[in-house]
Order: sequence, then structure tokens, then C-alpha cells
Amino acid sequence: MCSPQRPPLAHVFKGTFVHSTALSPVEILHGHLLGVDDNGTIVFMEQADQLEQLAETWGFRTSDIRQLSKHEFFMPGLVDTHIHAPQYSFTGTRVDLPLLQWLTSYTFPTEAKFQDNGFAEEVYTRVVRRTLKNGTTTACYFATIHTDSSLILAEIADKFGQRAFVGKVCMDMNDMVPEYKETTAESKLKEILSRKHLKLYPRVQPIITPRFGPSCTEDLLSALGGLAETHDLHVQSHISESKDEVKLVKEMFPAYKNYTELYDKNKLLTSKTVMAHACYLSEEELKVFSDHGAAISHCPNSNFSLRSGVLNVQKALEHNVKLGLGTDVAGGYSSSMLDAIRKTMVASNTIQINGVNETGLTIQQAFQLATLGGSQALGLDDVIGNFEVGKEFDALLINTKASDSPFDLFSADEFEVIRTGLMIKTINGNYVGKVHDTDRKSDDRNILEVYVAGKQVVPFSSSV
Amino acid sequence: MCSPQRPPLAHVFKGTFVHSTALSPVEILHGHLLGVDDNGTIVFMEQADQLEQLAETWGFRTSDIRQLSKHEFFMPGLVDTHIHAPQYSFTGTRVDLPLLQWLTSYTFPTEAKFQDNGFAEEVYTRVVRRTLKNGTTTACYFATIHTDSSLILAEIADKFGQRAFVGKVCMDMNDMVPEYKETTAESKLKEILSRKHLKLYPRVQPIITPRFGPSCTEDLLSALGGLAETHDLHVQSHISESKDEVKLVKEMFPAYKNYTELYDKNKLLTSKTVMAHACYLSEEELKVFSDHGAAISHCPNSNFSLRSGVLNVQKALEHNVKLGLGTDVAGGYSSSMLDAIRKTMVASNTIQINGVNETGLTIQQAFQLATLGGSQALGLDDVIGNFEVGKEFDALLINTKASDSPFDLFSADEFEVIRTGLMIKTINGNYVGKVHDTDRKSDDRNILEVYVAGKQVVPFSSSV
Ligand SMILES: [Zn+2]
Ligand SMILES: [Zn+2]
Repeated sequence: MCSPQRPPLAHVFKGTFVHSTALSPVEILHGHLLGVDDNGTIVFMEQADQLEQLAETWGFRTSDIRQLSKHEFFMPGLVDTHIHAPQYSFTGTRVDLPLLQWLTSYTFPTEAKFQDNGFAEEVYTRVVRRTLKNGTTTACYFATIHTDSSLILAEIADKFGQRAFVGKVCMDMNDMVPEYKETTAESKLKEILSRKHLKLYPRVQPIITPRFGPSCTEDLLSALGGLAETHDLHVQSHISESKDEVKLVKEMFPAYKNYTELYDKNKLLTSKTVMAHACYLSEEELKVFSDHGAAISHCPNSNFSLRSGVLNVQKALEHNVKLGLGTDVAGGYSSSMLDAIRKTMVASNTIQINGVNETGLTIQQAFQLATLGGSQALGLDDVIGNFEVGKEFDALLINTKASDSPFDLFSADEFEVIRTGLMIKTINGNYVGKVHDTDRKSDDRNILEVYVAGKQVVPFSSSV
Repeated sequence: MCSPQRPPLAHVFKGTFVHSTALSPVEILHGHLLGVDDNGTIVFMEQADQLEQLAETWGFRTSDIRQLSKHEFFMPGLVDTHIHAPQYSFTGTRVDLPLLQWLTSYTFPTEAKFQDNGFAEEVYTRVVRRTLKNGTTTACYFATIHTDSSLILAEIADKFGQRAFVGKVCMDMNDMVPEYKETTAESKLKEILSRKHLKLYPRVQPIITPRFGPSCTEDLLSALGGLAETHDLHVQSHISESKDEVKLVKEMFPAYKNYTELYDKNKLLTSKTVMAHACYLSEEELKVFSDHGAAISHCPNSNFSLRSGVLNVQKALEHNVKLGLGTDVAGGYSSSMLDAIRKTMVASNTIQINGVNETGLTIQQAFQLATLGGSQALGLDDVIGNFEVGKEFDALLINTKASDSPFDLFSADEFEVIRTGLMIKTINGNYVGKVHDTDRKSDDRNILEVYVAGKQVVPFSSSV
């Protein structure tokens, strides 16, 4: 009896793979073969000496293998666990006010403009393209309160092939900018409506998105918590970002003993929840996060830029809280997750300088948080986060030695660089400005190609 | 009697100029005409309606004017007041140890390799090219203890047209890596020798460079101070970078009441001195700096990366201490002064978050420190630092809307962006990785051209 014909593999790559595992912040696998099937799933990851057997099992020829060059490697796609798509329209500017004034002066008036679908389409196209180019294969987006433009964001993410959560923002309180809010009933209805449409995409999912405590009535929070429970939905919001905000929540919701309880009692703190910032959570609150399997999105660029605070990541990890990194555009001025890794190191180092912690994170751990950690924070670690067999192939092809790369490599320390430094140079590359350069050979930069679920999404195809 | 023919101007630019003045951290001059003569000196900077009179006075025609596009502007070249050229060979890696261990484990062994002129030439060519590309028109370099390779650095800076100070490092103590030091006599002699050759270049100058207190005997410090006094020379070193270092200096030099006095009593703290870091200076020491007109080079990337400390810039400025920014490659992982501006904001914001200062620096002030401040710190503010008539034209041509720019501009907020945000977007642009992009129109990036003393040095000419 002959077995049914196996469909041909989508990719077989041979070369170096750098990723994180549960046991090791950075595992570097040289001379490996990785196969991706037609569904985008990694079907094998073996040492190259297994070639013969793999070729027979999976029905590929040596000529089907793409051999990476000595200066190339694959790393997992970056997971941005917290980004506000509409705020991309002012990224890199207007970080001169603290959180609450920043929201009122810049953010709410900007988000109100997203009732204009044309404007939304312009901004959302750019934020999806930009983050994909920067290597963000998965983005957990806040949209605005508008159903139509939230759906436009989902459509664009799907079109460009980015894996995403899209949250239509729910908020029924806004004393400072009253034209940017909904009624409670309207908010519930629009949430349901947007979610229904969002269910249509294979890799773009809805997420329940109360803006944050001060923007929501208990009525709304409780209704959203009920929906999350009934439909087993993902949830995102903000918590304990700045001292003023924590104080405001205390004043507005005196019946709750702390900010965490406000979300928890309203069924919004589950194992599918990711909360941004968490700079000022008490040990008691961290324990609640841990018990519920709720995650923190650490957004250090934003925390520094708005002078909100500094999350003690090591303490959160010691409490076994799931933790990923976020850009928090536009509180954070950079839409790049490599920047989030670098700023995570600055935040951790700051805590050491202040004498609060004796040790700090390593850059390897920050890399882990930006990939595997992010997948855990979003409840996607059975699907993405590293190159384990069975997961989908979300990956960045890195080339460290293009002649126009943002950093230089030196022959003298090649061995050590290859072993441990390439990834760090890639992260710290920090390219600033390109110039005409007579000895430039090509257009290759560090992130040459981006894959989501086995599909190459960068360079952009001419059809999108 | 007819006046002698005036030589033709080298450049007349028309458009927007952004720079700092003594009175204003950022002055944005739209619709201005700037003329540069054959020596590289700015001879006029006037509103465009003065065209007719300027053309007559300076003998140029309308067709000689280069009109900048709406998305272009000139800013002053960036001044890196502290960078270790040899350490460029490991930039972006190896920042996992605190200062003293970092020196012993990574830095001294690397610097020892610069007795090899070939290696020096490779590294020094790259660091000069890279920093020029990043917009550093003036660099204040530490080289190594080797005379020959220090001279190679000067030759390369001159060849590529970078304005520079080059300091042959002097150090006659090194218990940890004994093969990387000189005898006292040898150090003095080599300093004199290297300085003699360095005097040959028009815009590359020598600078007396004791490494830092713990690397020098009092004999050497005092000899170098004597040379500085006799020949009216510039001086650079390190001071109060980390707590361990301050403690070590206290132990090694018990006769001096503090670190500042060690340099001061040895005649190394003058109005031509720039000292890197200064994180832990007392008010008393800051006052000595101020009284002597000595400057601080603030290197926040390095301070964060090596977990050394955080300089309170506002306090130093309140004490009227001259202050510029530095990358401190490779304690700092980035050779870009735009990164130094961004990290200066993080440092200032950290001090606010910690409640030490009530207010912080603005990004406009950080820009001022990276340009005009740097020129003051290096005693070059009569020559460079902004676009005042009489100074030399060290400038960057910025284009904010190349299709492959690291940031997006939006039509909706064009007016405000043009007014205040362009520079901030430029600084925060934070480009990460370039990808093949079907809609890319050109190779233009944000720093299109770099000028030193009126001479275009980037894009590199094919002759270098
Ligand atoms: Zn946010
Ligand atoms: Zn230094």
C-alpha cells in the first residue's frame, strides 16, 4: 500500500538559527536544517548531517535547500505586545508631557481623527509596513473607539501578512476631551460588532480593550469582563503606568483595594490578559498577576519618555509573571522592537545603578523577552516565539555584513563575534542615517527578509 | 580706484537652518540665505529678501544658489567630545562588566593590539568613516599608548576631512594588564613626539591625554600638566565615572582631598580641559570646574551600559560648567551622536523619575549640548557650533522625507511637524534595518550630506 503523496515543503533553510528556549535565553544553532511546510509550520530542525534522512522523509532535493551565507542567520520574529496604531501618526514627537496631560493634549485629539477612514487608512498602512520592516511579525494593537477604522487596521494587517491582535478601544468616560468617548451601551455594541468582523481573519484576532481604569465606568468594565469570560477572549489594557494615574484610580474607584483588583473583580485579569507598564504594582498585585497567569507588557521607551516610572522586570520575573516587551508607540518614540530590547537594558541597568537590584538582565534575556516572552504574554507560545518543531515559522533573516550595515565587523574578532556578538551587534546596531557611499555594494541591510507563518512578507510583494 | 576681485563663494544655500544660539536651544530660520567662502567660513546668514544686496556684495548669481527642498534643512555638525577610536573594534558588544573589570577584560587587551599598524589602519578608517556618516564633524579621540598608530588616526581623520583632536594615551600604571603601559619617561617622550607630528594638520589637533587617575603616577600627571601649561595645550581625561573608580583614586592618592584636586594640582584642569563622565562630582568639585572653565563630556550611553552612574546635567549647568555630549565608544554601544542626544534625554528623565530633579532637559537643550555645547566643551566655540557669521561651516544636510527615511511624515500634521517636530523626528528616527522595498525611490536618507569647514566630506569622494 503506498502512502499518500506529501505536499512539497515551502522552505528548507540551512545555516545558523538563533532563538530562545525555556531553558536558555539564547541558543545558537550552527549548521542546521529547518523545514517549513505549506501551512507555515516548522516540520524539522536538525543538524545538517541528518540531511539524507530528512530529504527522504520530506521529499526534497539538495537543490531545494537555501543555504544561508556565513554572515546570515535567522532569528524569531519580534513580538510587540503593546502598540497604539493611531498614535503612529505622531511617533517621535510630543513626549514632553506626563501621561495624563499627554493623553489630553495630544493623544485623544489625534485618536478622534480616526472617524475619518481615509486618514485611518493612511496611518494604518504606514504603521503596519513600518513595524513589519522593523521585524515585528506580531503586533498587539490598540486602535481607537471607531469600529470602521479598527476594521481597516485589521484588513491592512491581514493584507500585509502581519500577525496581530486588534482592539477597538472601549471608553465611556473622558472629562477632559468629551468628544472622544462613547456611551456605555454604544461601547459594548461596537465592541461586539468589531469583534464579529475581526473573527474573519486567520492571523488577525480581536482583543477586548478597555483603555484603562480612568476611562471606563464600572458598568463598562464589568460588561467587557463578562464578554471576555463568555467568549474566552483575549484582553489588553494599561495598569499602574504613572503615579498620578494610580492616585486617580484610587480616587475614582475607592471600593477596590488596588488597581489590580479593579480589573480582577471585573473579570478582566485572566490568563489571556496583557497589561501594559505595571511600574507601580505591589508585591501583592504581582502575586495576583502570577496566580491568574496574566501578563505584563514592559514598555521602557514610553516609561522613560513620559517620565512615568521604571518597571523592575527582575522582580516581576521572580514572581513568575509572564512578561513581553512593547514599543507603546507613541508614548515610546520608536516603533522598533530592537529599540525596546535596548531600552529594556537601560531600564534594568538604571535599577542596578540606583542600588535597588544587585544584578540586572542580560541582553540575551532581553532578546528572549522580545521573542519567546512576547509570545507567552499574548498566549501564543504554542504557535510562535522560537523555532521549535510544530510552531509557525515567524522569522527574520539577518545579514550582519552588508557593506551598508549600520555596524562594522572586524576580521580580528570574527570568532567571538560569530559566537556571541552578532546578535548583540544587530540589536545595538542603531543605524542613524544613510549616505551615498561609493563603496556600497548592495541594498542589503540587517533585516533582509521577514516571514510570518512561512510566508515572506518583507520585502513587500508588489501586489500589496 | 577699483577694489581687488573677491574670490568666488564656495556655497550659497537657500532654505531652512536649524541651530542653537547662546539665547535659544533651537532657532529655526526659514527662508534664509547662507554663504560660505573659499576658506569654509560662513560670510552671511540673512533673510532671503536680502538677496539682491548680498548678490552684489558677494558677487554671486541666482543660478549659484542651491535651493533646499521643503523637506530639507541644515543643522550644525555634531560634536563628539569623547570617543575611543581603538575601542570601535568592539562597539556594540561586551558591555556586560562594570568599568574596572571591563577595562581589564576587554579594553586593555584590545588597545594593546594597536601596536600593529595594519590593524590600526583598518579600525581607524572605519571609525572615522562611520562617525562622519553619522554626522560627527568633530571628534575628540582617545587613541592608544602607541605613537605610530596614533599618528595613523590623525592622518585618516585629515584624509576624510573630519575635524578632530587626537590624544596619544599616556599611562604608566597597569597592574592588571602589565603589558599595556609605558614607563614614565617613555610616556612623556612619546607624548611629545606624537604631538609634534600632530601639529602638521590644519583641523586635527593634539590633546594631552592621561588615561585617568588610576593609570598614572603623580610623576606622569605632573609632567603632562607641565607640558599642557608650557605649550597651552588641550587636555582630556576621565573623572568620577563609577563609584569603584572614585574609591580607588581615594586609596591611591590619599594626599588629595578629591578626584578633581588630583587633576587640578597637577595643572590638568584648565579652560582647555574636557573630562568625561563626572557622575559623582561633589558641588565643591563642580565649583572648581566652573572656576577653571573646565568642561564635562556627558556620555549617557556608556554610563547606562556599564552601569556606572547617571550625571545630573542640570546641576552641572546650574554651576555654569561647560558641557558637551560624547558617545564614549565602546563603553557606549553607539557611535552616533543622535543616540547620545536620545540617551541624554533618558538620563535626565531618569533623574526626574527618581524625584531628584523637578524638571528635566528638553530635547532642544540636548540638541544644543550636542552641537554648540560640544564646541564650548572643546574650546572651539569661536570656530564651530552653530551658523553664526565668522564660524566655519560644519553642517549636516537633513532630508526628512526620503521614501526610505526611518520615520514617516503625515500630511495632516505637516505644519506643526515643520515648525517643531522635524528635528525631533530626525533625532528619534532610530532607523533599524533596511529592506528591499518596491516603492523606494532613491538612496536618500536623513543625513544626505556632511560638511566640514565648507568642504563636503560625505558622501565620501572617490579619492579617499
Ligand atoms: Zn499604551
Ligand atoms: Zn572614555
